[in-house]
Amino acid sequence: MKLYDLTLSGNCYKARLFISLIGQSAELVPVNLLEGEHKQAPFLALNPRGQVPVLEDGDDRVVDSQAILVYLARRYADEAWYSQDALIQARIVGWLSFAANEMHHGPATARVGRLFRRPIDETLTAARALAAMQIVEQQLTEHAWLAETSAPTIADIAVYPYAALAGEGGIDLVPYPAIRTWCSRIRELPGYIGMPGLE
Amino acid sequence: MKLYDLTLSGNCYKARLFISLIGQSAELVPVNLLEGEHKQAPFLALNPRGQVPVLEDGDDRVVDSQAILVYLARRYADEAWYSQDALIQARIVGWLSFAANEMHHGPATARVGRLFRRPIDETLTAARALAAMQIVEQQLTEHAWLAETSAPTIADIAVYPYAALAGEGGIDLVPYPAIRTWCSRIRELPGYIGMPGLE
Repeated sequence: MKLYDLTLSGNCYKARLFISLIGQSAELVPVNLLEGEHKQAPFLALNPRGQVPVLEDGDDRVVDSQAILVYLARRYADEAWYSQDALIQARIVGWLSFAANEMHHGPATARVGRLFRRPIDETLTAARALAAMQIVEQQLTEHAWLAETSAPTIADIAVYPYAALAGEGGIDLVPYPAIRTWCSRIRELPGYIGMPGLE
Repeated sequence: MKLYDLTLSGNCYKARLFISLIGQSAELVPVNLLEGEHKQAPFLALNPRGQVPVLEDGDDRVVDSQAILVYLARRYADEAWYSQDALIQARIVGWLSFAANEMHHGPATARVGRLFRRPIDETLTAARALAAMQIVEQQLTEHAWLAETSAPTIADIAVYPYAALAGEGGIDLVPYPAIRTWCSRIRELPGYIGMPGLE
């Protein structure tokens, strides 16, 4: 497998982390986002959305970090990571949507504004980040894992990076004890790897 | 089945449309978003995210429009709507993420600004809407259905409402012939139903 990757991207880290957790490995191909490589023709031919990560596995190519988790889970992982039960699978996909929308436009955007000094709407982003963190905290107060299962699923892997990295966006994790405990549980999983900011 | 619903919501329409396409039916429970019913305790007990739609099916409850499509497909629909093949299922989930993020913050937000007169960042939303519509147009120029399958999948149902309703957000569909053809194909599916703005 080959993963088009940016070390500092939480979305790429989702893929790297899950590949490691399921005992697989991938060649990492760095994409220079600072120089705009993701918006130039060679990369756009790989992914018209101009986003990392992109996974190549033989002739198969998968774009979108949530889609990559589904691909890896279906092809290589124990079914517990992505249950075939209709209700649990729906819950997981609900959290994948949450990762793509609420986590992206909240904690992840706050981090992009602060860490990469991109212009963002700070008031709106802070409100969205607060709302997203509170929803995750409430769920994890009631359940050990986001999809209400007895073991972690790809829902946890999709939400974890930008929740754990929230401090880099100026969001204090102290008011979120359930999130902090859940982060510790994820860090204890066999095969866990970190990223810069999450050592 | 019971669907907590708002007639004018494209996300609720996703669920209503798919229920109809697979020959199921659901009791519709209107939620008065204009009076803020979705942010009050009784509804928040159903869905802490404070969003419609919510589906109840016996003891099962599913929140998030993308998750509802997965639940219905897994439980009630022909497998073609949500293939069990790893690559196709990953592609579908990639488009569900796209519906939750790019379609939501682009065409759907443009529509909310214009139709419901909510304050939005018009410049940012217009740029996001343009980018989203161009990505959908490119995919549909090359493929009849978004997940590159020979039949429609829940990816099409997730993206269709806010693409088809784009005009209500001030986005002209004339430059998107592939989207218009795909909309026509969806409208011809057995069991298709419309919504206000899509009669």
